[in-house]
Amino acid sequence: MRERVALIGAGPSGMSLLRALALAEDAGAAVPEVVAFERQDDWGGQWNLDWRTGADRHGEPVHSAMYRDLWINGPKECMEYPDYPFDAHFGRAVSSYLPREAMRDYIVGRVAEVAGRIRPEIRFATAVRWVQPLEGGGFAVTSEDLVTREAVTERFDRVVVATGHFHTPHLPSWPGVETFPGQVQHAHDYRSPEPYTGRRVLVVGSSYSGQDLALQLHRAGAAHVTTAYRARPQDIAWPAGMDEAPEVQGFDGAEVTFADGSTAEYDAVLLCTGYRHHYPFLPRELALAGPNLLAPFGLWKGVVWHADPRVLYLGATQQLFTLTLLDAQAFFARDVLLGRVPVPDEEERRADMDAWFERMTRIDGPPAALAYQGAYIQDLSSHTDCPEVDVEAVARTFLEMRDARIEDVRTFRDRRHRSTVTGTLAAAHPVPWMDRPDDSLEEYLHRFPA
Amino acid sequence: MRERVALIGAGPSGMSLLRALALAEDAGAAVPEVVAFERQDDWGGQWNLDWRTGADRHGEPVHSAMYRDLWINGPKECMEYPDYPFDAHFGRAVSSYLPREAMRDYIVGRVAEVAGRIRPEIRFATAVRWVQPLEGGGFAVTSEDLVTREAVTERFDRVVVATGHFHTPHLPSWPGVETFPGQVQHAHDYRSPEPYTGRRVLVVGSSYSGQDLALQLHRAGAAHVTTAYRARPQDIAWPAGMDEAPEVQGFDGAEVTFADGSTAEYDAVLLCTGYRHHYPFLPRELALAGPNLLAPFGLWKGVVWHADPRVLYLGATQQLFTLTLLDAQAFFARDVLLGRVPVPDEEERRADMDAWFERMTRIDGPPAALAYQGAYIQDLSSHTDCPEVDVEAVARTFLEMRDARIEDVRTFRDRRHRSTVTGTLAAAHPVPWMDRPDDSLEEYLHRFPA
Repeated sequence: MRERVALIGAGPSGMSLLRALALAEDAGAAVPEVVAFERQDDWGGQWNLDWRTGADRHGEPVHSAMYRDLWINGPKECMEYPDYPFDAHFGRAVSSYLPREAMRDYIVGRVAEVAGRIRPEIRFATAVRWVQPLEGGGFAVTSEDLVTREAVTERFDRVVVATGHFHTPHLPSWPGVETFPGQVQHAHDYRSPEPYTGRRVLVVGSSYSGQDLALQLHRAGAAHVTTAYRARPQDIAWPAGMDEAPEVQGFDGAEVTFADGSTAEYDAVLLCTGYRHHYPFLPRELALAGPNLLAPFGLWKGVVWHADPRVLYLGATQQLFTLTLLDAQAFFARDVLLGRVPVPDEEERRADMDAWFERMTRIDGPPAALAYQGAYIQDLSSHTDCPEVDVEAVARTFLEMRDARIEDVRTFRDRRHRSTVTGTLAAAHPVPWMDRPDDSLEEYLHRFPA
Repeated sequence: MRERVALIGAGPSGMSLLRALALAEDAGAAVPEVVAFERQDDWGGQWNLDWRTGADRHGEPVHSAMYRDLWINGPKECMEYPDYPFDAHFGRAVSSYLPREAMRDYIVGRVAEVAGRIRPEIRFATAVRWVQPLEGGGFAVTSEDLVTREAVTERFDRVVVATGHFHTPHLPSWPGVETFPGQVQHAHDYRSPEPYTGRRVLVVGSSYSGQDLALQLHRAGAAHVTTAYRARPQDIAWPAGMDEAPEVQGFDGAEVTFADGSTAEYDAVLLCTGYRHHYPFLPRELALAGPNLLAPFGLWKGVVWHADPRVLYLGATQQLFTLTLLDAQAFFARDVLLGRVPVPDEEERRADMDAWFERMTRIDGPPAALAYQGAYIQDLSSHTDCPEVDVEAVARTFLEMRDARIEDVRTFRDRRHRSTVTGTLAAAHPVPWMDRPDDSLEEYLHRFPA
């Protein structure tokens, strides 16, 4: 009998898996029956913007953390599918940094060829409520159609978890935070900078996203923006009106105390404190937990759930390479599902996981982290026919971007990088990012000759 | 064998049910085994304030819509448990309007006598993930301990749903809302007025909560506050800096068009558009749906799920009488569980529901609505030994409050009402509500001689 696979989530990872399966089928493989469950009304995962915060139109937690004016925070040349160049998608050279709609258009375009076959495999507006391992083998998956409210429980042989990990915000606490009179908002609920105009804003968290939001607020006229870092100061030459501070110790009304004993008053706090692995539909023995790591706990090859290899994860890894990483995982997962990649025994899996984990602990900075994830992608791809990524070239582009960011965080998005796939040099967007260019796909494309 | 009952939710309704069962047990009744599941870390439901929005400390959707500076929006004399006067609880006469902490203190105080017995029946920080009716009878309830992440599935004979219906916001949409540059926030995520200071704010929705938030923003220095109503203008003499407008038709950037064709620009939008019945852990055939009504669809006596009387709901009704209503429902539910109140056959239930529904459709204003819910409480109580509420006297107090609100929405909370239980006239709070009196329990109580 044909195996049945439940795929939970139809964002970029799930889309990659469905595409990879379709390609294998075209090449003559017998593929399992896949039912994909997507809580949103459309595919695209994080790349779908919802103006709502809190609850979506079905009353479910809003999935996406996207905001207006989001432009990718690394060059597109670091995210390019080797078999689907940006040039080819847009029919022209475009800038290195894309607005959200353009990026989403590219991701959807990549699966266009098989869309007519794979889209019907997805049940949109359908939430998985519970996955129960069955004693006789397989899983009972209970899902609910969010429109009809009809729930069904079905048996599957395997489960692929591709729900991502940027949907459930992590909100740590600090002494006195409840006395802060202004808004304390997590980045997940941020949509536009205007509410912060004229305000003194504390951005907690100095990841790239934290940096980006700080800059968005500064650009849109916040009175002052401080970024609080946890570990060490950022390599950023802050422009006037921006600065940074060490870790937050506590709040006393509007006054915030930092780890160096300094204090300052703020009108608003924006928490860029990350996300949590959150799988409320999975029993603990199947649910990934822990911090956002390059080698997440308990996943062989970052994909196969060690404790129960019938469960696979996609996109659970900390992302540097993003789309190409997700694609490599999807091809690997596909070949595990097809039996082309045998899952070794427990001991061998454990040894491999330990080796990668140990290697991860020796990462001493961005170049090493990029080399690590590059090697990981190569390792995955060595088992499959995933399009090959020139990981060294991409890593070099990353580091160019990093230098540009350090030099001037306001202008790094105006830089042009060269495709590692086609060799094309990106076009220049005529409007500097700091001047807030229109971020609609249509207006964006008008800026570049076809 | 002793029946097993799963109680989902330990807010005021669940607390009332646990207390009522304890009282029956004291009087010699054989009571079922109850396991209560509470997602929050403490009991009190909506009365627990979480500074977080979006996700709580476990990554679950934040339950409570409470905000700083919340004072009850109807007099305490309309919410008083007949067997637990406010005077007795606080050991003194206090004002008619209480801040959140004082109200919560009263609700918790009511169950203090039995707390040592009923609190251990509650599994805190535990979310019910799925309720599955079993073919052999009963229900399989799968719950997850949010701290250990351990999930268990247990069999229960009956299920009592007491999760409330103010946790999942209803966010309707309007043409162009995604182009609005400022913050569009649902009241569920509102915590304090400061983010709105100096802003032109559109409050959508003119319920009492909408009115209250509009006033909070005005009091804290919003540049202007417009309240958009759906049906008809409110009976409110708006002070300078506040006004109202008919239904929103659409957005074009910051400009909002109303049903009368008028337009105005705003900096922020606060959606007081209500909540939805949302029971993501229940299959459709057990899940209440529809609008917030005095007689919700499909509930016999507002408590017993008509389609499957092994399922009971508490607090699913639109609330005018609030605490006393919830208590009457809890006593009724208890006596259904104890077999003291027989559940009639389908036809008789249907006839009763239809009669109440039909009566509801004839309600033509607040006095009729109060009379309706008063009669409903009396009907419930006639089957139980629930403490008797003087519903006519409470309705009169409601209407006094309504007149005071119409007269001056800024000062109605300074009025003093008389207890329908003890005859005590409320004390005067020395600080007018518009001057933003300290809302901590300690500071509040200092204002009144013991």
